[in-house]
Amino acid sequence: MHEISDFLDAGDAQSAAAALAELHPSDIADLLEQADEDRRELLIALLRPQFDAEILAYLSIDLRDEVIERLEPKALAAAVAELDTDDAVDVIQDLDEEAQRSILANLPPEARALVEEGLTYPEYSAGRLMGRQFVSVPEFWTVGGLLDYLRAAATSEDTDLPEEFYDIFVVDPMHRVVGSVPLSRVLRSRRGVKLVDILHEDIHRIAVTMDQEEVARLFRNYGLVSAPVVDAGGRLVGVITVDDVVDVIEEEAEADLLAMGGVGEDDLYRAVLSTARSRFRWLAFNVVTALISATVINQFTNTIAQVVALAALMPIVASMGGNAGTQALTVAVRALATKELTTANAARVIGKEVLVGLLNGMALAGIVGGIAFLWFGQSLIGLVIAGAMVINLICAGLFGGLIPFVLDRMKIDPAVASGVFLTMVTDVVGFLAFLGLATVILL
Amino acid sequence: MHEISDFLDAGDAQSAAAALAELHPSDIADLLEQADEDRRELLIALLRPQFDAEILAYLSIDLRDEVIERLEPKALAAAVAELDTDDAVDVIQDLDEEAQRSILANLPPEARALVEEGLTYPEYSAGRLMGRQFVSVPEFWTVGGLLDYLRAAATSEDTDLPEEFYDIFVVDPMHRVVGSVPLSRVLRSRRGVKLVDILHEDIHRIAVTMDQEEVARLFRNYGLVSAPVVDAGGRLVGVITVDDVVDVIEEEAEADLLAMGGVGEDDLYRAVLSTARSRFRWLAFNVVTALISATVINQFTNTIAQVVALAALMPIVASMGGNAGTQALTVAVRALATKELTTANAARVIGKEVLVGLLNGMALAGIVGGIAFLWFGQSLIGLVIAGAMVINLICAGLFGGLIPFVLDRMKIDPAVASGVFLTMVTDVVGFLAFLGLATVILL
Repeated sequence: MHEISDFLDAGDAQSAAAALAELHPSDIADLLEQADEDRRELLIALLRPQFDAEILAYLSIDLRDEVIERLEPKALAAAVAELDTDDAVDVIQDLDEEAQRSILANLPPEARALVEEGLTYPEYSAGRLMGRQFVSVPEFWTVGGLLDYLRAAATSEDTDLPEEFYDIFVVDPMHRVVGSVPLSRVLRSRRGVKLVDILHEDIHRIAVTMDQEEVARLFRNYGLVSAPVVDAGGRLVGVITVDDVVDVIEEEAEADLLAMGGVGEDDLYRAVLSTARSRFRWLAFNVVTALISATVINQFTNTIAQVVALAALMPIVASMGGNAGTQALTVAVRALATKELTTANAARVIGKEVLVGLLNGMALAGIVGGIAFLWFGQSLIGLVIAGAMVINLICAGLFGGLIPFVLDRMKIDPAVASGVFLTMVTDVVGFLAFLGLATVILL
Repeated sequence: MHEISDFLDAGDAQSAAAALAELHPSDIADLLEQADEDRRELLIALLRPQFDAEILAYLSIDLRDEVIERLEPKALAAAVAELDTDDAVDVIQDLDEEAQRSILANLPPEARALVEEGLTYPEYSAGRLMGRQFVSVPEFWTVGGLLDYLRAAATSEDTDLPEEFYDIFVVDPMHRVVGSVPLSRVLRSRRGVKLVDILHEDIHRIAVTMDQEEVARLFRNYGLVSAPVVDAGGRLVGVITVDDVVDVIEEEAEADLLAMGGVGEDDLYRAVLSTARSRFRWLAFNVVTALISATVINQFTNTIAQVVALAALMPIVASMGGNAGTQALTVAVRALATKELTTANAARVIGKEVLVGLLNGMALAGIVGGIAFLWFGQSLIGLVIAGAMVINLICAGLFGGLIPFVLDRMKIDPAVASGVFLTMVTDVVGFLAFLGLATVILL
């Protein structure tokens, strides 16, 4: 890959193109992602004549749009037609409508029908993830018959055998899934053995409407490599393989991480203006909560005017509450994502967070109270901040656990929305407890 | 699974045990995770007679320790001996030394040697992940010969064929990997075909010392299902399969998410005291940064005493800086984890963050400045907060991008440490800019 940069630096486009042709699509995607704009344009120009649409599948969505804009619809459609249906659906689903239409119109009729069908399934469903090529055979076949069939299909012209597969699906005459046989099991069995005698019946059939997160959970929990996708009637309609699921796991983990950081979606490749706009929404929300805290503080200007040291100390209480609350919140958000936090154990988990808040609140109260006393030489100031700390950390534990759980029950993504509400609570409680106690005790 | 709860509620231990025996180890692990302590004890008592060590592989580390403590070393060793080497290593590596020794001592000599060898590889390396059972054959073999070998091995007594496998590894006489043949390719080929004619030579050989994160990246980028692990001499020593990699991807994503939230490790099942203690470290760090901000504010008590409204407004500047900085930081931490942020594009990425900070800083300056003006009826106060907002958001963008990048270069995990430094910067700059401007402009 460094070689290609060297060729391009030296202006040797031909050698660069030759070296590009040797690379795996995912490496080309990496190259495009790490290039600056000029270099990217140059690379796309080199790739254009024989564009491999699989590169698109590895690009982040923003960069994908950029690359697609620079390709001709016909060339793009030709490239997409070469993809497996699931990859084609994956690439097309994120495009805007016009781009979708122009690619679909240029696809061969058969591929077009499959892709259009794929797009009819709900977003993030198993139907969007699944491939349409699989090996399904009747239950009365033997291992020998299967081998002969596969060998014949491999050499036939219009084979629809998938490039790679991991399980043979055994179906009844209605095309309902009876079971599956892992390939390693086929290889171990003699020709005369009947498939019905070596198949696993107790397999995980995935409904075509199942959410992709649930699909990922199944694959992870049961160590699956491929699984049949069935329609409402139990008929085999597709297959999901573990490589699709790895992408889903990555995407879900990334989405949670970004959401908790207040970023809507990966914006690494987006232009400055569009990045700023998408992030602004989150900041605007936070302005509201910051203004609410300001209003709280503003009720105590009289107290602050009399003991100005309070102004220096009050952010400590709010920020420590925020930090402790974020700890509880992170654990809760993660446990909700992995289904480890459920109605059954919610009271216990949240109760524990309150206790943890109490313990750490007392520990911090001792430290910060002591420092405040030494700093300002007033034991009452130490007492005020210590009391406020305990109150705020208990609230932080309570709401850090409770907010994500309640949002999740309300079908709101806890990773996205929990942070704003929590900050509001820990700021308001922090300032209120500290300045309130100060007013009562010091004045 | 609900059934089992019902049985236990009704005190019908026998039916519960029977139902448990039907469950997949990962479901039993789920059940243990969701149970409260009494219920968990009951479940473990039911499982003890025929404990399936695979359950341990699915449990979170804390819960695993708890379960292991309640099993007898002998029974536990018997259960572990049933596991594949990689799972056994996975279970044993996280135990304390005494528990490790007691299990190892009770393992059959052969399994013990393999597990002990596994433990000699560095933590988080391919050597710890890999399985020791694989199918490797010489290059001159034919498909027919391979089939005969596998069928014979499957029925032999002391077979060391893995339960499931996805690739046949072709090795030279020195046991160096020449290439691999996916099983679906074997099945498609006639008996007379030589393996050397159908093998993929251009495969990804994984060095036994490779970090697991790098292994995961290879599997993800190239859609691998299994890959050979080789020693320094290129000799085949093990195989990594995609199910191990799915766990790694999950763990890495979880570790980053928790670290960014200020939580060292998953503590959902840990006792209150131990949770509080492990989280306290992070909070103690943050006390230091909070005290630094307090010191900054304390320099301006004179200014605050004269315009008390400043006390109400100053947390807005600091908190908006913190929020905007966290956005930049989250994107940078994620991009470092996926190797999308490198030295080659760091200047561009960080430069973009500064521009985004400038744009959103100006937008927020307008909004918050306007509100402050309307609220306190002083246009100069609006001007002060607007100016401070722009300054702090530019710093937030700069340091939100820079801190993770620099920490990563210094081989410090950016997910863990970036947050503290960033908060320090945005708090100090926020208070300093706001109160400094106020002192200059208002007094």
